[in-house]
Amino acid sequence: MDERFRVTYQIVAPDREQARQRALGIALEQTVEIPLEVVPEGFVQETILGRLEELSPLSDDRFSATISYSPASVGTELSQLLNVMFGNSSIQQGIRVTGFSPSPAITRLFPGPRFGISGIRRLTGRARGGLVCPVIKPQGQTTDVLADLCHDMALAGADIVKEDHGLANQQTAPVRTRIPALVAATARANARRRANGDTTRALYFPTLCAHAEQFFDLAFFAREAGADGVLIMPGLYGFDTINRLARHPDFNLPIMAHPANLGAWVLSPDHGYSHAMMFGTLMRLAGADISIFPNVGGRFGFSADQCRSIASACTCPDGIGKPILPSPGGGMTLERIPELRAMYGSDSAYLMGGSLLDQGKNLGRAITDMRTALD
Amino acid sequence: MDERFRVTYQIVAPDREQARQRALGIALEQTVEIPLEVVPEGFVQETILGRLEELSPLSDDRFSATISYSPASVGTELSQLLNVMFGNSSIQQGIRVTGFSPSPAITRLFPGPRFGISGIRRLTGRARGGLVCPVIKPQGQTTDVLADLCHDMALAGADIVKEDHGLANQQTAPVRTRIPALVAATARANARRRANGDTTRALYFPTLCAHAEQFFDLAFFAREAGADGVLIMPGLYGFDTINRLARHPDFNLPIMAHPANLGAWVLSPDHGYSHAMMFGTLMRLAGADISIFPNVGGRFGFSADQCRSIASACTCPDGIGKPILPSPGGGMTLERIPELRAMYGSDSAYLMGGSLLDQGKNLGRAITDMRTALD
Repeated sequence: MDERFRVTYQIVAPDREQARQRALGIALEQTVEIPLEVVPEGFVQETILGRLEELSPLSDDRFSATISYSPASVGTELSQLLNVMFGNSSIQQGIRVTGFSPSPAITRLFPGPRFGISGIRRLTGRARGGLVCPVIKPQGQTTDVLADLCHDMALAGADIVKEDHGLANQQTAPVRTRIPALVAATARANARRRANGDTTRALYFPTLCAHAEQFFDLAFFAREAGADGVLIMPGLYGFDTINRLARHPDFNLPIMAHPANLGAWVLSPDHGYSHAMMFGTLMRLAGADISIFPNVGGRFGFSADQCRSIASACTCPDGIGKPILPSPGGGMTLERIPELRAMYGSDSAYLMGGSLLDQGKNLGRAITDMRTALD
Repeated sequence: MDERFRVTYQIVAPDREQARQRALGIALEQTVEIPLEVVPEGFVQETILGRLEELSPLSDDRFSATISYSPASVGTELSQLLNVMFGNSSIQQGIRVTGFSPSPAITRLFPGPRFGISGIRRLTGRARGGLVCPVIKPQGQTTDVLADLCHDMALAGADIVKEDHGLANQQTAPVRTRIPALVAATARANARRRANGDTTRALYFPTLCAHAEQFFDLAFFAREAGADGVLIMPGLYGFDTINRLARHPDFNLPIMAHPANLGAWVLSPDHGYSHAMMFGTLMRLAGADISIFPNVGGRFGFSADQCRSIASACTCPDGIGKPILPSPGGGMTLERIPELRAMYGSDSAYLMGGSLLDQGKNLGRAITDMRTALD
C-alpha cells in the first residue's frame, strides 16, 4: 500500500525544464532542506526526500507538479503536515498549492470533521434548506446588549447565532461572563420556539479568543457553559487548534472556522493556496464543520468561480472526511437570495451581518424573510 | 494621554477620495464590522470605531493611511491585537500593513523581547561580532547522528546550534528523546571549549513542534532538559505562543522565530505585511529575540533592500522593546561574508545550513572559517 501523500503545486516557470527544476527544488526544500548532493543515502534519500510524481503544463508559463511525501516526515502533528506541505516554499514566488491527496496513513491521523453537514442538521433539527446564521456584533457593547441581540436572533428563527470574530475578551463584555449570558439568552428563545411548536432550534457559537496556552481551557469553559459550538480563527490560533478540538473525545461540539488573518494566502493567483484548498480542503483536514469565507459581491472581491470552488471543496463527497457547510458572508441581502441559492444550494450556512443590523427593530422580520426566501 | 495605537496601511486606489473611502472602510472593518449608519452611538462610535488619522499619497495609485484604534478593542490578547490590526482586511486586495505604533497601553501589555541582542550576547559570552549559527539537519536521521552533528558544530565554535524547523517529532528522532541527547552533546562540546580556554559557548535551540494543547508542555520540557533557547514557527503556532513564552516568568529562555508558513504575507507588493513589519516589528512585538528570514541571493528572492529593511526593523533603537538579532539564512557562503557583514553589521546571527553540510568532514573547518571571516 502506498502510504505517501501527495501535494499539487502550480509553479510559474518559463518552460517545462525550469518547472521541473523548481519542482525538484520544492521536493528538497519541504523535506531535507539541503542540496541533493549531500542528502544521506538510504532512508532519507529513498523515503524522506519528496518525490516528483507528475508534471504537466497548465499554460505557457504555468505548470502543475505533484510531489509525494512520506508520512514519516510528518510524525503525528497537523502543524508538521502543513510544514511539509508548504512551510518554506510558501516564501518563494510563483508557487501555489492547488491540491492535496492524503494517503491512508494521513487519513488515520486526520480523519476530518466530527459533525459535518449531517451532524449540524441533526443539532439544529433543520433537515433541509439553507441555514440562517446571524452574527452578534459589534464589539464595545455590554454583555446585556449582546445577550438581547442573541435572544432576538434566536427567537426569530436563526439556525446558528454566531458571535462576530471581533468579540474577543474586551472589558465591555468579558468572554467568561458573555458566554453564559448568551447561552441563557439562546435557551430562553429556544424555549419559546419549542412552545410555539417549532421543531428546530438555534445553536449559539461563541468566538474563542484566549492567550495561547489558555485556548483549550476556554473551549472547555464554553462547552461546560452550554455553548452549542465554537468559532475559531485558524489564521490566528493555528489549524491544529481546530484539529485537536475536533478530535478530542470530551469536546464533541461543532467547529466553525473564520477566515480572519488568512487573506494573504489566497489573494495572489501566483502564490499561497488556492481558494478551494484554503477554505475547503484545509478546513476539512483540520476538522472544521463549517467554513466561513467572503461571499462574491460583498466587500472582499472574491469571484463567483472562486466561491463556487470553495463550496465544492467543502461539500464534495470525495474530500477529506465528512462534507462540511460552506458559509458565505458579506453582501447577504434578501434580493440576492435566489442567486445565492442557485450558487450554493441548500447545504450552506448563510451569514447575515451588517445588513441585518441595518434593520434595527425589524431584525426579527429580516431573519424570517431570509428563512422564507431560502425555503 | 492618548492611548490609541496606530496602524499604517498602504492602500491601492485610483485617487485620494477613493483611498479615503477605502481607509474609512478599514476603520469599520477592523472594529465594528457594520455599516457606519448603524454603529451604536457613544462608546462604540467614539472609542471603538477606528479613526483615520492621516492620509497621504505615495504614488499615483498608492496612498498611506494611518488609522488609530482603542486598546479597548484588544482586551489583553496578542491574537486580538493582530485581529484588530489586519484580521478581516487581510482578505481584501490592495491593502498592506506598513507600520505600527503601539501606545503606552499596548506597550504595557506587550513589552517585547526578554533577551534581545545584549541578552543573547551575555548567554553566548561573545561580546561582539556576528554570531555563527549552524543548522542541524536533515530530518529522517537518528538522534545519534543528529547529536554527533550538534556536538561537532558546537565544538567548532558555533554560537547557536539550531535545529532545522523540519525536525518535528518524527519516529526517527522523537523530540523528547532528541532534546536531552542534543543538550548533552552541546554540553560535552562546551566543556572542551572551556578546557581550551574559550570564553564563549554554544547555545542549543531545539525546534518546538507539538500538538496545539501540548506546545507549552514541550517548551517547559525543553527548558527542564537544559536547552538554551527554542525555535518557534509563528506561522504554524501563532505569534501569541512566542509572546506567552517570552512573558512567562518561569520560562526565561531566548526565542528564535522561524518564517515557515509566513511566506504569503510578504510576497506581494500590494497586500499582506511589509517585510519589515512581518520579520521585524511583529517579531519584536511578539517577543522573539532572533528573527530568521531568507537572505538576499539565496533561493528565496528577497531583495537587498527588503533584507536591509528587516534588519533595520529588528535592530532600530526606537522599535518595540529591546533590539533583536536579524538572522539571515540561505546563500551563506564564505565568499559572501564581506558583502553580508557590510549589509547586516555585527549584530546579526548568520545561519549556515545546506552550504555547511556540503563540507562533510570539513564541517568544523567551515565554521571556524566563518568565524574568522566575520571577525
